Amino acid sequence: MQNKIYTDNAATTAMDPRVLDAMLPYFLDVYANANSAHQPGRQAHVAVEESREKIAGIIGAEPAEIVFTSGGTESNNAAIGGVLAATGKSHVITSNAEHHAVLHPVASAANRGIDSTLLPVDQTGKVSAADVAAAIGPHTALVSLMHGNNEVGTLNPIDEIAAVCRSNGVLFHSDTVQTVGKIPVHVDALGVDFLSMSAHKFYGPKGVGALYIRSGSAWKPWMEGGSQERRRRGGTLNVPGIVGMGKALELAASEMLENRTHVEKLKHALMQGLTERLGTAVQFNGDPQNGLFNIVNCSFVHPAERAIDGEMLLLNLDIEGIYCSNGSACTSGAIEASHVLLALGIPYDMAKSSIRFSLGKNNTIDEIPLIIDKTEAILRRMTSQKL
Amino acid sequence: MQNKIYTDNAATTAMDPRVLDAMLPYFLDVYANANSAHQPGRQAHVAVEESREKIAGIIGAEPAEIVFTSGGTESNNAAIGGVLAATGKSHVITSNAEHHAVLHPVASAANRGIDSTLLPVDQTGKVSAADVAAAIGPHTALVSLMHGNNEVGTLNPIDEIAAVCRSNGVLFHSDTVQTVGKIPVHVDALGVDFLSMSAHKFYGPKGVGALYIRSGSAWKPWMEGGSQERRRRGGTLNVPGIVGMGKALELAASEMLENRTHVEKLKHALMQGLTERLGTAVQFNGDPQNGLFNIVNCSFVHPAERAIDGEMLLLNLDIEGIYCSNGSACTSGAIEASHVLLALGIPYDMAKSSIRFSLGKNNTIDEIPLIIDKTEAILRRMTSQKL
Repeated sequence: MQNKIYTDNAATTAMDPRVLDAMLPYFLDVYANANSAHQPGRQAHVAVEESREKIAGIIGAEPAEIVFTSGGTESNNAAIGGVLAATGKSHVITSNAEHHAVLHPVASAANRGIDSTLLPVDQTGKVSAADVAAAIGPHTALVSLMHGNNEVGTLNPIDEIAAVCRSNGVLFHSDTVQTVGKIPVHVDALGVDFLSMSAHKFYGPKGVGALYIRSGSAWKPWMEGGSQERRRRGGTLNVPGIVGMGKALELAASEMLENRTHVEKLKHALMQGLTERLGTAVQFNGDPQNGLFNIVNCSFVHPAERAIDGEMLLLNLDIEGIYCSNGSACTSGAIEASHVLLALGIPYDMAKSSIRFSLGKNNTIDEIPLIIDKTEAILRRMTSQKL
Repeated sequence: MQNKIYTDNAATTAMDPRVLDAMLPYFLDVYANANSAHQPGRQAHVAVEESREKIAGIIGAEPAEIVFTSGGTESNNAAIGGVLAATGKSHVITSNAEHHAVLHPVASAANRGIDSTLLPVDQTGKVSAADVAAAIGPHTALVSLMHGNNEVGTLNPIDEIAAVCRSNGVLFHSDTVQTVGKIPVHVDALGVDFLSMSAHKFYGPKGVGALYIRSGSAWKPWMEGGSQERRRRGGTLNVPGIVGMGKALELAASEMLENRTHVEKLKHALMQGLTERLGTAVQFNGDPQNGLFNIVNCSFVHPAERAIDGEMLLLNLDIEGIYCSNGSACTSGAIEASHVLLALGIPYDMAKSSIRFSLGKNNTIDEIPLIIDKTEAILRRMTSQKL
């Protein structure tokens, strides 16, 4: 019987069974439309508002500053599209290591006359606040920079960047889907005006997320329809999903230290083991010491200094029951090297040889030696033992 | 013990327990990201594609023509926004009886230089194909007209309108959220280029829907991000929701005749009973004979020819455990009269006196006399027995 080891928690997590329990009554019993005025509608409405209060409380926001969405991608699109529509300004600043859910809406906005600046990142994947300050001009509507990078886990200095934005009167959005529920995310400590969340990244359901909109920020609704969400996002509320998101974030917040301690230990064991076995043949990308505690992104080099085919490595790990990725699941199947790793200045062939292990609370310490053993064995096979 | 009678199925339906059963494995077990290349990811991917094939087959489309969304509102926004972006044309035609999920995106497009024509509807709520033809001009990008009206159930002559659009080289979108799963909806029989669906309207989960995009149609992605959905809609796929939508539509299609026969009988019994008890004091809005078999929209008149306060009627029905609405749940809480009823030429006070009973497969024939009795009793109380 083969061990199955899931180490792709940055792509998505297994829903916590307690989250499913919280959601179940809202499928068959409390099924009414949360915007219906009748008694069952009000019951659904109460559940939605309780979830909104929980989520707002955890990130230090007011409930009215939370708009439920279908996930992180919608939140990002809505933040960018909504600020551009409301401010009428024509310039957006982001970085070349952002998720495509930021980069693609920004690129498409060019068709509507919007300029963009893609800031560089340093070799760890970090944007500097000084670069943000230098890029801000009179037409800048928005700066959008992620909190934790989804591929390498590097953390941007969000508070510093926010201070620069505020002193220049420019709105600031942060894609925090990789950090909310893992490390403290507080809207005032970070200083953000907009923040994107996705429930399935913290053991909640897929298909639901939220956008934090600081009260008073210039922003127009992006997905328009009925008067749901105080006229800020049309569409029948996904009551079970919203309830599940609230429960998942509540659990993530209350068990944050315990989960972090556990996963951090796994990360260190994995990095230490790979280093011991592979020496200089393994290179860790990003900011392994200071970055997110759950992501290990590494490239592998053959002694003849040729990068190892990451696709082939992934395929072999998959056959062995070890499930990880070569970057974002959102672009898997792509032939190109990760734009994030290239942004870090990693050479093309090394970027193509990278894999991402993203650990989670369901991983165990016993799995780590298995991952290390199998990775080493596959690499030795691929390089004819020359590693 | 009070009877609870839910007659607000046009707002949302109770999920079918068989749909929940189909979804359950995808929360805790097959939880991987459907775009991940590894084995559990491929397993989730297969489930998504099976659902896509089911849905496509039922509406006569190719699987590749189906893009999963978060629901009807997103589908409408994506159809309108995507066609405008792709064609670069500056005119949209719709009607003043459409759902706000069409009207509001069209109205906002005015800020980007897009003109719109809001066609009138006749007293039943129907748009004429001749009016569509007359409104089409050289800059027209899109005609968007709903199949079945959500408030009164009137059916537009979609095939005739589609023929007009096609012969003029104009794209045609139809919001079919109220008809898919209830009456046959076939993309070629209707002749549409785009079609919006929402799972929770046919006993499926909330938070998931789909947009049909006829192959070759000029359209650009609206929600942008990763390369999911053949680069047509970013965002991690909501696997349980998508599986549930497929199952729900499969059930709706296979049990369509049985559900229709059952609900149609309820509708006729309700209309007949209200007429027998209330005579000319009840007026049915829309197209009760030819419209959707599940919607009864009626206004109530006092003998002194003053319309009765619909809000008060609703409130009293709610207290009695009868849950219906005064139009779309998406606008409930609004003080205004329904824009749909006003578009039908119904006077303001009569529009304000209207309520909508929307029946579903879970309603029983035994509930109908209770609805009639209580409605009559409340009306007599409200009019001091003078009805």
